[in-house]
Amino acid sequence: MGRTLTYPKRSSNTVNRYNHRATYDLGAIHSIINSSQVLHVSFSPGPEDPFPAIIPMIGQMGSFEYPSADIDEPLECYLHGYVSSRIMNLARGSQEGLPICIAASKVDGLILSLTPNSHSYNYRSAILHGYAHLVTDEAEKLWAMELVTNSVLQDRWKHSRVPPDRAEMSSTVILKVKVVDGSGKIRDGGVSDEKKDYANEEVTNRVWTGVVPVYETFGAPIPSAQNKVAEVPDYITDFVENKNDENRTYAKEAAQVTLPKEEQH
Amino acid sequence: MGRTLTYPKRSSNTVNRYNHRATYDLGAIHSIINSSQVLHVSFSPGPEDPFPAIIPMIGQMGSFEYPSADIDEPLECYLHGYVSSRIMNLARGSQEGLPICIAASKVDGLILSLTPNSHSYNYRSAILHGYAHLVTDEAEKLWAMELVTNSVLQDRWKHSRVPPDRAEMSSTVILKVKVVDGSGKIRDGGVSDEKKDYANEEVTNRVWTGVVPVYETFGAPIPSAQNKVAEVPDYITDFVENKNDENRTYAKEAAQVTLPKEEQH
Repeated sequence: MGRTLTYPKRSSNTVNRYNHRATYDLGAIHSIINSSQVLHVSFSPGPEDPFPAIIPMIGQMGSFEYPSADIDEPLECYLHGYVSSRIMNLARGSQEGLPICIAASKVDGLILSLTPNSHSYNYRSAILHGYAHLVTDEAEKLWAMELVTNSVLQDRWKHSRVPPDRAEMSSTVILKVKVVDGSGKIRDGGVSDEKKDYANEEVTNRVWTGVVPVYETFGAPIPSAQNKVAEVPDYITDFVENKNDENRTYAKEAAQVTLPKEEQH
Repeated sequence: MGRTLTYPKRSSNTVNRYNHRATYDLGAIHSIINSSQVLHVSFSPGPEDPFPAIIPMIGQMGSFEYPSADIDEPLECYLHGYVSSRIMNLARGSQEGLPICIAASKVDGLILSLTPNSHSYNYRSAILHGYAHLVTDEAEKLWAMELVTNSVLQDRWKHSRVPPDRAEMSSTVILKVKVVDGSGKIRDGGVSDEKKDYANEEVTNRVWTGVVPVYETFGAPIPSAQNKVAEVPDYITDFVENKNDENRTYAKEAAQVTLPKEEQH
């Protein structure tokens, strides 16, 4: 009870700027990754290409060995996405795994302060570094496919046509990332300006300051032309309602959090 | 008139999967970048670190030399963000600029089809490869600061306390990225399933299929405790209203686009 696991600080994942906002807690970092619909995954294509590559992928933290592990325990990241053959071939051809970086960022609000320099976002962001391997065990692959499908929409897996057939299993590629380190940053709170600007009446009488909350919304489900199920099932309408509520509430509450002392002027 | 500029296809930016959804048009790619509140920027920290780095940054396409250039003309990407000293030092120390990859992705809808394998997102994503340099010219830096501030909220720059003073100018760092290539992918439309599943009545009678639109929402502006402007100004309420309308409309319309022939079964 009360144990908080943290990732080790290395030069590559240590946050220098506004470090009171940094977190190395597994729980906080994994939660940001798991609540992101898209992850950005970066890898080096090889010595002939000077540019790192980034691809958008769907992913989720989990543990196949300990499926009941909590979000704040050591977990792997399972990725399933628009997997170019490049990343697959690189991961397949690598003994110790392909070194990758996984990033997730969410904007929760626009911080509109007196001067452009003190403008900011409320946001949550996280990165993980780790080694990516192709999942070859069929049971683990099936488990990861369910994990990832349910991350798109809770309980969708069991409400769709499963299990995948042999062709579907072999066309699906899942990457398992053994995480080496990670870090997160969370900014919440309101406007922070300099004393000199607060003291300038011409400015304070003219410039509106405050927060515009920003959040992701799920719209009313639109049935396909082929759909034969008369009503939208509860697990879908509940998901839409709960997520909308959760997202809107987070963004509004984040705007009203008290700023850390060093930013109050 | 009618000219469409495209980025060159190189191995590093050529889209192989579902390539009818790929675009190399400057206009389409730049628009995705410019409408993203956060960009993910990747670079290699150096030979001693096996992992690429990703940092979230705010950025915008523009041309200081030709400020009236349209979105589909050659543009640079100006970045301003939570700039760790690492990326700044690397860019500062590099003669030909730091090779980076810039990515932007937006989810526009959940595609809920009969089987997990045919699930998808409606989305827009883009990447750019280029060389990043520190902007040293003061006039260009000021111009880029205005460009980036107004990308957060239209017209905010002139409604805040400007110009920045000497200390603000020197503490602000802007990266200018000379773009070498880029690509984008846009998925819209509805559900696409395999014939064998459409023909399975047990499945079609049980599995709801359709699209859940997804879009970013801006909430009602919350004034700060220090704010002295009685009413939320029109340029802010208009921005919130217009963006919400635009985002919701895009996601709904994307769900109703006709799929390309090869995906209709």
